[in-house]
Amino acid sequence: MSRCAPILPSQVPAMKDLTADNITQNVVILNSLCADTRVRYIFERLVTHLHDFAREVRLTSDEWQTGIDFLTAAGQISDDLRAEMILLSDTLGLSLLVDAITHPRPKGATEGTVLGPFHTHDAPVTANGYTLHKEDPSASSLLVLCSIKSTSGQSLEGVICDVWEGDAHGFYDVQDPDRGGNPNGRAVLRSDQDGMLFFTAVVPVPYPIPMDGPVGSMLRLLNRHPNRPGHIHFMLQKDGYDKLTTALYPRGDPYETSDPVFGVKESLIIDLEEVDETVAKRYDVPVGTKLLRYDFVLATVDEVRALKQKNAKDVLKQMRMDEEMLGELFSVD
Amino acid sequence: MSRCAPILPSQVPAMKDLTADNITQNVVILNSLCADTRVRYIFERLVTHLHDFAREVRLTSDEWQTGIDFLTAAGQISDDLRAEMILLSDTLGLSLLVDAITHPRPKGATEGTVLGPFHTHDAPVTANGYTLHKEDPSASSLLVLCSIKSTSGQSLEGVICDVWEGDAHGFYDVQDPDRGGNPNGRAVLRSDQDGMLFFTAVVPVPYPIPMDGPVGSMLRLLNRHPNRPGHIHFMLQKDGYDKLTTALYPRGDPYETSDPVFGVKESLIIDLEEVDETVAKRYDVPVGTKLLRYDFVLATVDEVRALKQKNAKDVLKQMRMDEEMLGELFSVD
Ligand SMILES: [Fe+2]
Ligand SMILES: [Fe+2]
Repeated sequence: MSRCAPILPSQVPAMKDLTADNITQNVVILNSLCADTRVRYIFERLVTHLHDFAREVRLTSDEWQTGIDFLTAAGQISDDLRAEMILLSDTLGLSLLVDAITHPRPKGATEGTVLGPFHTHDAPVTANGYTLHKEDPSASSLLVLCSIKSTSGQSLEGVICDVWEGDAHGFYDVQDPDRGGNPNGRAVLRSDQDGMLFFTAVVPVPYPIPMDGPVGSMLRLLNRHPNRPGHIHFMLQKDGYDKLTTALYPRGDPYETSDPVFGVKESLIIDLEEVDETVAKRYDVPVGTKLLRYDFVLATVDEVRALKQKNAKDVLKQMRMDEEMLGELFSVD
Repeated sequence: MSRCAPILPSQVPAMKDLTADNITQNVVILNSLCADTRVRYIFERLVTHLHDFAREVRLTSDEWQTGIDFLTAAGQISDDLRAEMILLSDTLGLSLLVDAITHPRPKGATEGTVLGPFHTHDAPVTANGYTLHKEDPSASSLLVLCSIKSTSGQSLEGVICDVWEGDAHGFYDVQDPDRGGNPNGRAVLRSDQDGMLFFTAVVPVPYPIPMDGPVGSMLRLLNRHPNRPGHIHFMLQKDGYDKLTTALYPRGDPYETSDPVFGVKESLIIDLEEVDETVAKRYDVPVGTKLLRYDFVLATVDEVRALKQKNAKDVLKQMRMDEEMLGELFSVD
């Protein structure tokens, strides 16, 4: 974890005769022409790790070409409704890691997990009580009934709740070639004055992540299965509170402990209940309908900032850099 | 540079509650279901460096999204005639490094350099004496006259010589939107019975790498200039000899010591001469035509293999792994 100090443009030496041993230092020097300290730091670490990787595995030209072709194909199969690079990041554990870094949670706050590749920006903006999916007789209906509170226990009104889910057969709407501009299985709701969020969904089922692209080839090469345990996605946002991207998993899924995108957390696994008469009357669903109850707890921006600053300080110590660099090198807001 | 030992599938533990601190270990464990030792090793190092990078810079979700969008766009702008991922690899110094790793050179052999993004597979297969470019009155003609020998001084006949070059204005044919299937400025030739390679080109001029895509945005962000010093590309291949990808640079180019793809080596910088009467008669070009002479020296496959094995052993030592792992972990052939 050694790092080169940024240098001034006037100090850039002539670059020639670069070898496996001196190329890294020289790329870092050339990139240090950049005036932004954070960008310079990111590129210094990126280039160093990229090169160390190549040196440690003695990466061959053929393997490199395979990587170039792989990344190109992942870009090319992507469009507004398919996010292969996110899937790649998910399956390499990077997405979970970045969520953990960006959104550290104080004790008591709901844990986050991966966004996944199936979030869209065209979900209907509607209200509590919404039914997520078009009618499907083969689906098992599920009432989702959640409270949303702060870490101090205050009910939070007006939280923007982006929710999305696959259908009873394990497919998201974006996987339907005929979907066009007609979203299904997703909505943007708002918590009410009691901090409640409720909607009707279907009991989630496990589903394979898309295996017909480059990421599928990678998982096959690695002898890994593609099946995610069933879940419902949530993204909760309110001014002053740290954005929460998470998901809830009904307990007992066969893939609960081998999620290909590393997203399962014990605190997000829920025992489903059944709707009793009181709830049935109140939310206008049949008695016996499956019920998912959960109490979300959002951390404030301030609580999360304090944790991020602590983590950044730990890195500075670990990298033997001055604590004064904190503000320059890290985005802690 | 610590590494996890590969483990058996039956040892895969339940994966849940992954955090910034334990995600890497768990991804490596899941990937170790792969039976191929080399693939497993590559992914172990890849995931470790990718995660260490994210942890050391405290990569934020927004920055991660920028990276996802960047790589997706780089894939999408690529096609048969545009190789943005190669350009990315070139500008990050990875291409030069991978060439150095894959093709270490014994003393006396010609040094390699970056392939670059402008090689194609549709160059005309023709013969010595070929004129690379369509007629261009503004171009300064150049006779390229090379010998090709082994490290023991033997002239090498029948070397397949892939040569390519931009035009007098610094553009490769693939940058012309009207190019279609009509290559220009490139050819595949063969060395003759005396090991000679000769063709007519144009005096190379500096040119900017393509700045209208994601890599261009990256270079602007980093405050780096895009101009490569003028050069002619060569790829030389013959059975029993290690493939040589290299380029020759006429001396005195303004960008000689600040190449954006890190490809210049002193041994590849050439003082241009002028054709005298003897050469003019022999190669049927006017007296005074610019002349590029070079003596290529190809290493044998065996010579290069020995160097690769030595380098791989050094890595094993550095990573504190058993020397027995050499054949399993590295491709040294
Ligand atoms: Fe999902
Ligand atoms: Fe070039």
